[in-house]
Amino acid sequence: MPTLTYYTATTLDGFIADPEDSLAWLFPQEQERDGLFNYDEFFAGIGAVVMGSTTYEWVLDHQREMVTETGSVWPYRIPTWVMTSRDLAPVAGADVRFAAGPVATVYDEMAAAAEGKDLWVVGGGDLAGQFADAGLLDEVITYVAPVTLGSGRPLLPRRLALRLLETGRNGAFVCSRYAVVGPGEWA
Amino acid sequence: MPTLTYYTATTLDGFIADPEDSLAWLFPQEQERDGLFNYDEFFAGIGAVVMGSTTYEWVLDHQREMVTETGSVWPYRIPTWVMTSRDLAPVAGADVRFAAGPVATVYDEMAAAAEGKDLWVVGGGDLAGQFADAGLLDEVITYVAPVTLGSGRPLLPRRLALRLLETGRNGAFVCSRYAVVGPGEWA
Repeated sequence: MPTLTYYTATTLDGFIADPEDSLAWLFPQEQERDGLFNYDEFFAGIGAVVMGSTTYEWVLDHQREMVTETGSVWPYRIPTWVMTSRDLAPVAGADVRFAAGPVATVYDEMAAAAEGKDLWVVGGGDLAGQFADAGLLDEVITYVAPVTLGSGRPLLPRRLALRLLETGRNGAFVCSRYAVVGPGEWA
Repeated sequence: MPTLTYYTATTLDGFIADPEDSLAWLFPQEQERDGLFNYDEFFAGIGAVVMGSTTYEWVLDHQREMVTETGSVWPYRIPTWVMTSRDLAPVAGADVRFAAGPVATVYDEMAAAAEGKDLWVVGGGDLAGQFADAGLLDEVITYVAPVTLGSGRPLLPRRLALRLLETGRNGAFVCSRYAVVGPGEWA
């Protein structure tokens, strides 16, 4: 079975984007490209990714930055599922598969496509929560930026018990890896 | 000038209490009493504390636990300011001073009473934010529990830029200390 990880940046107060879906608070933060939980190392182990429609549209809206960062208008060469109930435009040359759920079906398709590699939930928070609800979310890796926003898009809008596996610093970020234990059953 | 620190536990998704002000998610988490940013070491440097009325009432509602933890119905022997616009019951034998603000006035009173020691905002998040608004919040120390709640009392409902000073692990917690840089001015 592959490991399904929700790997994301977040603010200290648990927002993955501001109320206008902006990541302007994130881009100025320093990180070491070969540091703890760095993207290149993480992504090298990933065989399929899944994201919500808001995340997908964010990527489409930031194609200029994508070209600068990745040399391509679409950042992934591996199969990507986009969870949506709407009609969204595909990206030419990218392996993007639109799906409306349930997430367990998407998980099975992703696992088959990943050919032994692991799976990544890019975002958003509710989609990661849907995988957790289905008992399919194995790990959460957070890059916590030294920022509070007070409002925005929630990191993971669920009651969940996690277990801290590893933590450390990467540049301006506190980076931590957690195992998902299950629903939080506190009184 | 003393250092004013907001020292608090929080969930990974930025809640200091659940929607019913419960900390049931917090109590089972392990910590080392002599570990990073431990309470005894932190509190030894504190000369005055301030809290909001919800935090104060939480302490009053948990006197049995307080006796078990601290040997007293009131945990602090140092002057404590409680920010409130309501009439609240005092605690017999405790140096509790009710104030309605502004926070800058309370800060001056606390600094004078602390006799060279530092100051602690116990909670809640909005009160810490009021001190930040006034440019008086110097540091934030978070004990991040391996928990998400999805809703509850916000850690620090403001747009703030912080700077990570130190981070590490204490038991189940990721513990980090930040300097407050100022308002977050991202586009």
